[in-house]
This record gives sequence, structure tokens and C-alpha cells, in this order.
Amino acid sequence: MNALQLLDYAGVAVFAATGALAASRKELDIIGFVFFAAITGMGGGTVRDVVLNSPVFWTLKPAYVLVCVAVAIVVFFTAPMLESRYRLLLWLDAVGLAAYSVLGAALGLSVTGSPVVALVTGMMTATVGGIIRDVLAGEPSVLLRPEVYVTAALTGAAVYTALSYFGVDRAIAAGVGVLAAFLVRGGALRFGWSFPRYKSRPGRPPEEQE
Amino acid sequence: MNALQLLDYAGVAVFAATGALAASRKELDIIGFVFFAAITGMGGGTVRDVVLNSPVFWTLKPAYVLVCVAVAIVVFFTAPMLESRYRLLLWLDAVGLAAYSVLGAALGLSVTGSPVVALVTGMMTATVGGIIRDVLAGEPSVLLRPEVYVTAALTGAAVYTALSYFGVDRAIAAGVGVLAAFLVRGGALRFGWSFPRYKSRPGRPPEEQE
Amino acid sequence: MNALQLLDYAGVAVFAATGALAASRKELDIIGFVFFAAITGMGGGTVRDVVLNSPVFWTLKPAYVLVCVAVAIVVFFTAPMLESRYRLLLWLDAVGLAAYSVLGAALGLSVTGSPVVALVTGMMTATVGGIIRDVLAGEPSVLLRPEVYVTAALTGAAVYTALSYFGVDRAIAAGVGVLAAFLVRGGALRFGWSFPRYKSRPGRPPEEQE
Repeated sequence: MNALQLLDYAGVAVFAATGALAASRKELDIIGFVFFAAITGMGGGTVRDVVLNSPVFWTLKPAYVLVCVAVAIVVFFTAPMLESRYRLLLWLDAVGLAAYSVLGAALGLSVTGSPVVALVTGMMTATVGGIIRDVLAGEPSVLLRPEVYVTAALTGAAVYTALSYFGVDRAIAAGVGVLAAFLVRGGALRFGWSFPRYKSRPGRPPEEQE
Repeated sequence: MNALQLLDYAGVAVFAATGALAASRKELDIIGFVFFAAITGMGGGTVRDVVLNSPVFWTLKPAYVLVCVAVAIVVFFTAPMLESRYRLLLWLDAVGLAAYSVLGAALGLSVTGSPVVALVTGMMTATVGGIIRDVLAGEPSVLLRPEVYVTAALTGAAVYTALSYFGVDRAIAAGVGVLAAFLVRGGALRFGWSFPRYKSRPGRPPEEQE
Repeated sequence: MNALQLLDYAGVAVFAATGALAASRKELDIIGFVFFAAITGMGGGTVRDVVLNSPVFWTLKPAYVLVCVAVAIVVFFTAPMLESRYRLLLWLDAVGLAAYSVLGAALGLSVTGSPVVALVTGMMTATVGGIIRDVLAGEPSVLLRPEVYVTAALTGAAVYTALSYFGVDRAIAAGVGVLAAFLVRGGALRFGWSFPRYKSRPGRPPEEQE
């Protein structure tokens, strides 16, 4: 449980850092950094809790908010350094994605008992914060990028859910799930893994495609 | 009740198909198809349930999630065929819109007892999924298109609410409401029905319009 | 309490007017005006209530919906006049922002008892409606504009929260908070107040910034 909580705070912090970096790309002021850090760091968990009809986690433990504020301030003053380490940040983001996919699935499974719901809440917790960040920043959503991202979240949620559904100890299931999601996302970052994409037939007139 | 439940699954499936088609227009991979299908098929009902403080429907009946997954897979492999039948899809979408406007109004009315709330939840259930789909896909929101769309949803919700408020049997009210919404949307599709739009005075300098 | 409720209706009406004006800029029909007015007027409070696990305010008091509808209709027929008074509207919007930042903080504080949560819900109530409006209208989010906006909301929430946390009578705390937020936003409108913005180092190659 303690390890999971540590993962939780680490995930919030890493996602908050990506939100603050989006703010730096838009050249916002310090409050803009805090806002984007908070939305990206806590957005996915907020939607997860609302959908599961649970109290929203940061209304119970406001320390999460302070983590986002602290990260935003640090990034505001150190972003030139961080931007030149964007690749490092992508890897940290992969850690956050992996942790969140498992945490989301664990909460979904414990609240509803349904493996299908656990897959959805795992995918949601890991991706919604980044989606909101991209939409607010006016950047193309992570969903439209060619790289494997949602799939990595789904992998972590699926591995955790399958293992714990079949009786594996939950701490072990969590560890294996985080590792699996991180390997998929890491492989995408390192080797450019992607799935075959749908291709329209060429020569189709645009009005039919609308 | 059984007829309404059938309508419900049909509505989720049809909306999920429009989400998967948006994914095909963006040339996403299979997981992207599933994500867009799920958001479009279940988004409106999710927001409706959250706003009404009810448990979110697909957390109670995960079969809805599986419907979206199945639709996404079918569309992924058959989209070239479906795209050339886009007009058929628009008509199926009109069926979904009609069904959802009534289902949303019925839930809003039964939870709060307020006809005004029923109109809002009816409109919301029928339109929010498509709005989220358009925002995520980076396409102009359905709200900004000239065709009658939100109005059709409002019509279905209003007819159902008025009839059942004045004591008409709810199954009959639902049938008439679905028919009314479908006729309005169908008329817009077939005859290009639209309301007069607001027109700025010409020659107005841009800085005043901001 | 009565003064606060008056402020509440005034805030909804003023925000609804800004939503209807966004609809006029997009040249929508009357239903489009109603939709944008409702989303902008009630969006922030809806998200606030959902996050606090409270019943959504307009499902309990549907009169708020009717206020938005009335405002939308008035703006639809008088927008040419209002547009030429856009500066007046910005100032009314500042009143709404000020009122909402305090109302949101007050609800957050009374539900959770946490000052940190109160700051977040105050900021959220005052800004989310406008953010949704901008995203749906396809306009750059208010977050990306250089002017002090979120900061004014934070000021109102912070002043109210600090005063009432240290035992000041809540009506007085509310009044001072609304005044403080209005002064910050008013100063930004009148004198162009803004915070220093983050600046990337010049000459940085684009691929590193991504």
C-alpha cells in the first residue's frame, strides 16, 4: 500500500510537470503553469473518481494540490533546463502512465468488481489528464499521435486486472502491470512501436469521406 | 421497459459507430477506434448520470463497454464500406439522437421531477458524446454546424416531458417523443431545414466584434 | 445569504450573456445561443458540485436554467447593441468572476473544511464555464490570453478563504473577497495588468521545444 501511495504521488508530480511544460510552450505566467500542472496531474484521477461515484481524491487529501503547485513553480524557474531534457521527461511520463493505469484499474475493480470497468478506469486515469492538457493548450490530442500511448495504459490495466482477477497477490499484480505498461510505452519511445493504422482507400472523393 | 432498453443499446451502438468513423477519418489504430467509439457511445449518458448524481450506467452494466468495443472492431475492418454509406449512418445517428433525447429526459424527470431539468438532460444525453468526439478529433463541433441537431434533441425531450407531465402513459410518450425528434432531424437531413442564424451587421470593425 | 443568492443569479446571468455573445460571433441559431449561454453560465458551478460530490445546483433549482434561456433570447435579439458595448460586458464579466470565485471557495470550504480545496473550487467555479465556452467555440482558451484572469479568481478565493479561516464573519469575508477579485480583474482590464510570462531562450531549435 505504501509503495502504491508513493507511486501515486510520483505519478501526479510527473504528469504535473508535463502540464507545466505545456504552459511553458505557451509562454504563460506562473498561475498558468499552476493551472496546467494541476489539470494534467489530477485530471485523470478526478474523472475516474467522479465516474466511480467516489469522493474525488484531492478533496480528501489536498496535499496532491500542493504537489502540483510545487512542481509548477519549479518548472517555471527551471524549464529551460527541463526542455533540453525533454526526452528524460517523456520517460518519466511513461512511468506515470504505467503507475496510473494500474492505480485506475485497481480502484475500478475494487469499487465495481467488474474487470471490464477496471480496464476503462485504468485507461481513463492514465490518459484523461493529458487529453485535457492538449485540448486546453490547443495542441493536437495525444490520441491523434501515431505512437502507442493509450495502448500502453490499456496493457497495464489489463495485466493488473487479469492477474488479480485470477487470485494473484495484488501487490505482485500491480508490480507486473506497471512493468508491462512501462515496457510497451518505453518500446514505443525507444523503437517507434506503433500499430497498423487504418488507411482510407486512395482516390475517394472528399465529400464521401466527410 | 424492454423496448426502451433495446433502444438504449441501439443508441450506444450507433453513436459508437460514428465515433469509430471519426477515428477512421483520423487514420488511427484499432485502440484509437475503441477509444473514440467508447467516448462517443457512452459520453452523453456518463455526463447525464454524473449531473443527476446517479451511478454511471456502464459501471453497473459493463456490457455497454463491450458493445462499443465490438462496434469499433467491426468499423475498423469495414469502414471503407461504411464510409461509402455515410448517408445511411447519418440516418442511424438520427435514430440514436432521437432515442437518447427521450431516454435522457426520462431519467432527468424521474430523478428530479423537474420538466426543465428533463429538457436539459435530454439535450445533454443526445449531444454531449458527439461534442466530445468532435473536440478530441479536432473537428468543428456539431454545435457550430448550420444544420438542425441540438434542436431535434430538444424536440424529443420536450415532447416526452410534456406528454408524461400531463399524465400520458410513459411508453406512449416515449414513442411519440422519439418519432418527433427523428422527424425534425430527418427533415434537416432530407430538406436542409435550419433556423435563421444570427447575422452581425456588415462592415463592423473586427476589434468591436472580438 | 440573500445577498449571496442575488450575486449567484447575477453571476449566472452575466456568464450566460458572454456565452450567448460567443454564439453570436459564430452566427448560430437561437438554440445555439441557449446552449452556449447555459454551458457558460452553469458549467463552472456544475463541475464544482460534481467534484465536491454535491447535488448539481441547477438540478435542485431549475430557475437557473430559465435565467440562461432568457438571457440567450435577449442577447439573440439585441446582440448588435451589446457587441458595441463589449467593454461593458467585460466589466460585468469581471463582476461575475469575482462573485463566483468567492461562492466556489465558500462551498469548497464548507464541504471539505480544507482551505486548499477552497482555493481550487473557487478558481474552478469562476473559470471553467468560460474555458468550456472557448473550447466549444473553437476560440483560444482564456487561459492562453496574456491578461490576468485566473489570477483574479484565485485572489477572490484566497481572500475569502483566509478571512473566514481566521474567524472573520463570512458575509464580510465574502464582500472583501469579491471586492479584491474585482479590483484585480478590473485593474487588468483598465491598466493592462499582467504577470511576467515565461520566455523560452531564443534560438532554441523547434524539435527540442516540442
